[in-house]
Amino acid sequence: MDVTGDSPPVAIRQANGEGKCFNNHNGIVQPLLTDLYQITMAYAYWKSGRIKDVAVFDLFFRQNPFQGEFTIFAGLEECLKYLQNFHYSDSDINYLRQTLPPSIEEEFFVFLRKLNADQVTVYAIEEGSVTFPRVPLMRVEGPLIIVQILETTLLTLVNYASLMATNAARYRLAAGKKVRLLEFGLRRAQGPDGGLSASKYSYIGGFDGTSNVLAGKMFNIPVKGTHAHAYISSFSNFGDLQSKQMLLDKKTGQEQDMLVLATRWREPLSELLDIMPDEASEGELTALISFAIAFPEGFIALVDTYDVKRSGLLNFCAVAMSLHDLGYRAIGIRIDSGDLAYLSNKAREVFNKVAEKYDLPWFSTLQIMASNDINEETILSLNEQNHQIDCFAIGTHLVTCQRQPALGCVYKLVEINGTPRIKLSQDVVKVTMPGRKNAFRLYGADGHALIDLLQKSEESPPEVGVRVLCRHPFQESKRAYVIPTRVEPLYKEYWSRGAVRVQLPTLDEIRQRVQSSLQTIRQDIKRNLNPTPYKVSVSDDLYNFIHGLWLANAPIGELS
Amino acid sequence: MDVTGDSPPVAIRQANGEGKCFNNHNGIVQPLLTDLYQITMAYAYWKSGRIKDVAVFDLFFRQNPFQGEFTIFAGLEECLKYLQNFHYSDSDINYLRQTLPPSIEEEFFVFLRKLNADQVTVYAIEEGSVTFPRVPLMRVEGPLIIVQILETTLLTLVNYASLMATNAARYRLAAGKKVRLLEFGLRRAQGPDGGLSASKYSYIGGFDGTSNVLAGKMFNIPVKGTHAHAYISSFSNFGDLQSKQMLLDKKTGQEQDMLVLATRWREPLSELLDIMPDEASEGELTALISFAIAFPEGFIALVDTYDVKRSGLLNFCAVAMSLHDLGYRAIGIRIDSGDLAYLSNKAREVFNKVAEKYDLPWFSTLQIMASNDINEETILSLNEQNHQIDCFAIGTHLVTCQRQPALGCVYKLVEINGTPRIKLSQDVVKVTMPGRKNAFRLYGADGHALIDLLQKSEESPPEVGVRVLCRHPFQESKRAYVIPTRVEPLYKEYWSRGAVRVQLPTLDEIRQRVQSSLQTIRQDIKRNLNPTPYKVSVSDDLYNFIHGLWLANAPIGELS
Repeated sequence: MDVTGDSPPVAIRQANGEGKCFNNHNGIVQPLLTDLYQITMAYAYWKSGRIKDVAVFDLFFRQNPFQGEFTIFAGLEECLKYLQNFHYSDSDINYLRQTLPPSIEEEFFVFLRKLNADQVTVYAIEEGSVTFPRVPLMRVEGPLIIVQILETTLLTLVNYASLMATNAARYRLAAGKKVRLLEFGLRRAQGPDGGLSASKYSYIGGFDGTSNVLAGKMFNIPVKGTHAHAYISSFSNFGDLQSKQMLLDKKTGQEQDMLVLATRWREPLSELLDIMPDEASEGELTALISFAIAFPEGFIALVDTYDVKRSGLLNFCAVAMSLHDLGYRAIGIRIDSGDLAYLSNKAREVFNKVAEKYDLPWFSTLQIMASNDINEETILSLNEQNHQIDCFAIGTHLVTCQRQPALGCVYKLVEINGTPRIKLSQDVVKVTMPGRKNAFRLYGADGHALIDLLQKSEESPPEVGVRVLCRHPFQESKRAYVIPTRVEPLYKEYWSRGAVRVQLPTLDEIRQRVQSSLQTIRQDIKRNLNPTPYKVSVSDDLYNFIHGLWLANAPIGELS
Repeated sequence: MDVTGDSPPVAIRQANGEGKCFNNHNGIVQPLLTDLYQITMAYAYWKSGRIKDVAVFDLFFRQNPFQGEFTIFAGLEECLKYLQNFHYSDSDINYLRQTLPPSIEEEFFVFLRKLNADQVTVYAIEEGSVTFPRVPLMRVEGPLIIVQILETTLLTLVNYASLMATNAARYRLAAGKKVRLLEFGLRRAQGPDGGLSASKYSYIGGFDGTSNVLAGKMFNIPVKGTHAHAYISSFSNFGDLQSKQMLLDKKTGQEQDMLVLATRWREPLSELLDIMPDEASEGELTALISFAIAFPEGFIALVDTYDVKRSGLLNFCAVAMSLHDLGYRAIGIRIDSGDLAYLSNKAREVFNKVAEKYDLPWFSTLQIMASNDINEETILSLNEQNHQIDCFAIGTHLVTCQRQPALGCVYKLVEINGTPRIKLSQDVVKVTMPGRKNAFRLYGADGHALIDLLQKSEESPPEVGVRVLCRHPFQESKRAYVIPTRVEPLYKEYWSRGAVRVQLPTLDEIRQRVQSSLQTIRQDIKRNLNPTPYKVSVSDDLYNFIHGLWLANAPIGELS
């Protein structure tokens, strides 16, 4: 196992060198960002003299989101930053002193004031990995009081990050590799930071960029955007150009009048495309001209403010051809309403016609971006209709994870002072797996992951080429022998003795990790409709250990 | 209309005097927290010479969330703070210079660097008011470039805040006035700030407190919490008390042994309640004793770790009676799993039995808190089953607004340089109402709100006792005469000439406003099942104006 426990501590990379924003963002993530009961429990433990007790907690989820069969683990780096900065300020202590009952002993606040995460050890799966229910994403060990206190904040940092990265990865799977995906959801996000986290974790999950400028600045993510309907409708007629209609001709070095060029181009184009020029909006054409003058090298036009077919496409083509006259290439269009499959095909037809007529092959490949209330199902349906869309800009459904807005990660005590703990429940899915465990991913001959295997931490790891018995954790008869061609230990020691112990990956490396990790998972596990569950198993030793402890702890009922 | 335009600017209250957290929180809300297209549009406007153009935007929603018929408006104070702090830093400008195409003229960055919200005027409905579709929550006026730039951030600040406050208000309506409601959702929130906003706006919407300590510190909201299952299961047996089992007897001033008392109390109680003492968990009793010693005046016990009926209730009563012996009163229990209606009734039965047997009437009124995956429907169903719950602690469903995780507020251009703008759409619900408008709420003889009325801003307000024609904005035949007994102008001028123009309410005043505003709305509009839509109308003048403009702008189709 790649435990680099003896390596020197590694500083966490600063995002984009922008201390200001970065610190502001992290400012919220502080020890008081927690549930009050963490502090009341801490006091009760302290009061009971349990300062030296040590515990092990598992952080895991019980069910994959979005009716899928996989989950991307994300949020680890933020957890490590939280550990690094963990301490209560004087102001925090004062607030707690006012808030907790007056009977709290003053010495407890002295204890809290000195508390940090130096004695905590965190093992975790690599951020960006595909993960599965019940396999702990993180194992947190250390003094009972501090590891209990960490619960809420670690859950907050992992839950939404993983949900969002998973959602984004699903959109990427639905859209295929070639289509560009942009996150445009800030305005509908759950709070300002919800928006920032959405930008960051959708990028990790496989998106290509965001509209969120602050996310771009903080995380060094590509930012994209053009104009809104309001921009188009703020222009009524050519008079709104206020004589600012000149653009440099790259070929001659002279300025040319874009209004003259574009109105001239409208004539032959309207004939070619069979669109009446007086049906096309003059305000829209004015707006597109002004935008082209501002961004001659990056001209993308919103074409659905009035009517895509009768106005937007003609106006776009007139401006794009004018730009071409001056040595510029337009980039494409955005459609924000209507039947996206039909309209994208219509637009491609128009581009093809112009390309052919004027012998400009690049005109056929102009980008078509779509952005109207798109979700995973919309993309799958558009695929079936052979859409011609090159880029989806996705907002609400992506950032709020509308289909399932919360991932249910939990944080459960599994060992205390070396003694395993089991939480029983009438619901078998809620029974915890006791003790300190390791996890391995076993690969088959074709390179795909076959099964995840949990073992007691003292067991020796499975070996390549050696048969290992993998058991269902709760169903006695479900067992299988596996001869792995590769064994991947899932945990690394990320945090111990007060420092990060591993060189942390960059955002782009985590983003790569998502794709390479997804590559190792069979297609039927990743598909949208009725995916096959991936197998998570326990070793024979762990199975017997769990069930022995279970029987020892479960009360025998009495029917009456 | 209460326009206090001439009053001196009023400083925005600082939350709780805690500068540090407060600033950290707001640190994210800055001009770069926006969509890139706001900046590219700004450049295109600037490049077109439209620096002096002025515009009016309406911020509104088209549909109430949660299949309901009302929405609570929230987020206004945060919008005003954003306006107050609006400016691009040098670091922002540097980032934009790197990000935008190199062709952007340097002078534009000089322009941006100096940009602020001093020339913007904001009219808005009072924060915490009940509002309805199509009635603008805010009207934002000023130079086109800056009012356009504000779009994304204002939407971000209003959308989730209003959604959350509405969700909380619905839970309050479902639970009734007497039941306490606590927000416990931090760990499942969409990002750390999503959690903070949830705490704040659920308090505004009618919750009584939160588990989120930082929210308590920042917003001065009551924070609540006791212990988790992990606390209970971290104790195995009496040995875990490590001899810390003494508690001060308030009556005698002597210390008493709580372990001795509680184990002694288990005998008669187990007989009274018909529970075998050896079925009740020793670890649980140990945990409860230790917690009672830490919080003798605030003892609440989680009773479902092992078995509510066979273990938790007996152990709780034993500890509560021991506390009583020493002069303390327990507060109650929390149940986090199982059939909440049944278990709460069972618990109340037990409390009643003890109360009667030992002649302690207060024991009957011990609090029962429930906290397992509760949503609005759960509460309504529990109501039908005559539950005995005094307090609900609600997490995931509340904070992520699981039933509908986004409110679709939009920000639409309605006037530019004094000329009204209409956005047409094949979908009539998406047609905007052009021009600068005022809004009034008209009340009937019984004191309830009858209808909201939008007028052109130059019309005189409706008058009490004078008949006014209220028309459906789009359906010609839907009209009604109304003689209001009270006319409430909905807009105040909140921001102009660079300052807040109204003394802003405290969080508690906004919270009061929600309840008083809901009071004025008829019950059938607020009910959960098939609520009646509230009427939103336009004046005859505005009706004719909209439809004239609509006809003038809509292209005449051609069937072929």
